[in-house]
Amino acid sequence: MVSQKDLFELIKSRRSTRSFKAELPPRDALERIVEAGRYAPSGNNNQTTRFIVITSQEKLGELRQVLTGVWANMPIKEGMPPPLVGLIQKAKAGPVDVNYGAPALIITANKRGYVNALPDCSCALMNMMLMAQSEGLGGCWINQYRLMGDAPPLRRFMEEAGLPEDEEICGALALGYIDQPASEPLPRKGNPVVYV
Amino acid sequence: MVSQKDLFELIKSRRSTRSFKAELPPRDALERIVEAGRYAPSGNNNQTTRFIVITSQEKLGELRQVLTGVWANMPIKEGMPPPLVGLIQKAKAGPVDVNYGAPALIITANKRGYVNALPDCSCALMNMMLMAQSEGLGGCWINQYRLMGDAPPLRRFMEEAGLPEDEEICGALALGYIDQPASEPLPRKGNPVVYV
Repeated sequence: MVSQKDLFELIKSRRSTRSFKAELPPRDALERIVEAGRYAPSGNNNQTTRFIVITSQEKLGELRQVLTGVWANMPIKEGMPPPLVGLIQKAKAGPVDVNYGAPALIITANKRGYVNALPDCSCALMNMMLMAQSEGLGGCWINQYRLMGDAPPLRRFMEEAGLPEDEEICGALALGYIDQPASEPLPRKGNPVVYV
Repeated sequence: MVSQKDLFELIKSRRSTRSFKAELPPRDALERIVEAGRYAPSGNNNQTTRFIVITSQEKLGELRQVLTGVWANMPIKEGMPPPLVGLIQKAKAGPVDVNYGAPALIITANKRGYVNALPDCSCALMNMMLMAQSEGLGGCWINQYRLMGDAPPLRRFMEEAGLPEDEEICGALALGYIDQPASEPLPRKGNPVVYV
C-alpha cells in the first residue's frame, strides 16, 4: 500500500512537462496510464469517459497541421483572450505544436452536454498524470483540444480517429519522457483554504 | 518514491464511501488531504481553486437543513432528472443527508464562469480522494452542492462560510472513516479506449 507520505511526495513533485524527448514510451506503460484513468470515479459510475490514445507520429503530425490551420484561418477579434491571439499569430507564421514535442497524446471525451462530462474526464486525467509520473514519464494537460473541439477540421480529424458524433473533447494529456531539467515543487500561493 | 504498481493498486482499490463513522478524522490528516488538493495542477498555474473545509458538526447540521429546505420547496416538474425528483420527494418527507453521515466535507469553488473552474477543482478533488485513501479514510464526491449551488439559501450559507460573491461551487468531497464492508475494485465495463 502507498503511504500518505510517499503519495504526498508524488503529488507535490509532479510538474507539468513542457519539453519531451521524441522517443515513444513502451506500450505497456501507456496502457497502465490509461487504466489508471479508467479507474477514476465517474458520476453515478456511468463510465462514459472515452480515451483516444494517439501514438502514430504520422497522425500526430496531421493533428498539428489541422490545429495550426484552425488558428491560421481565424480572424483576430477585439476581446479575444490574449493566449488565443498569441496562438493565432504563431499559426499564421508557421506550424504550432501545442504538445511540446510529446510523442503520445491521450484525448479524453464524454457525452456532449452531460453534466459530469468535464469532471469525470478531469479526474481521469489527474489519475493519468500521477500514474505517468510513477512510470518516470512527464505529462502536460493540453487545453487547446477542448477549447477548439468544435472547429470543423479538428472535429473531422477526431471523428476519423474514433470520436462518436454525440461526444465532445473534454481534455487532453501530452505524454513522454521528460526533456527538461528537474524542477522543485512550485509553492502554492493561491488555492486558499477556509476551515469552518 | 511510489512505484507504478503500488500507485495503480491505490487507484484501482479506491471506492466511493457511502457510509461513514461519526468520528472526525484528525485535523492533520484533513490538512494533508487539502494540501494534496492544493498541489493539483491548474490552468496556467492560476491556483484559483478555493477549499472550504467544514468540520463543525453544528454547521454540517445547518447545511443539511438548508439543502433539505431547498428541495422540499421545489415543485416537481415534468422532464426533471429522476434523481432530482427522488431528492425532492425525500426532502418533502424529512431531512436528507447527501453526505452519507460524513463528519467532514470539503467544498471546492472557483471563479464563476472561468473556463478552467470545473477541471481545476476536479483535479484537486481527485488528488484529495487518493490522499484520503492513503490516510485510511473514505471519501465520496458529492455533486449536489454544485448542482444546487445557486439556490439562494445554499448560496447564503456558503457566503457566510467564506465563499466570495464571484465564485461558484464546483464540487465537494464527503470525508471520514469508512463504515461499510471492504469491497473489491469495480470492473470497468465502460470507459472505452481507442488506440490510433
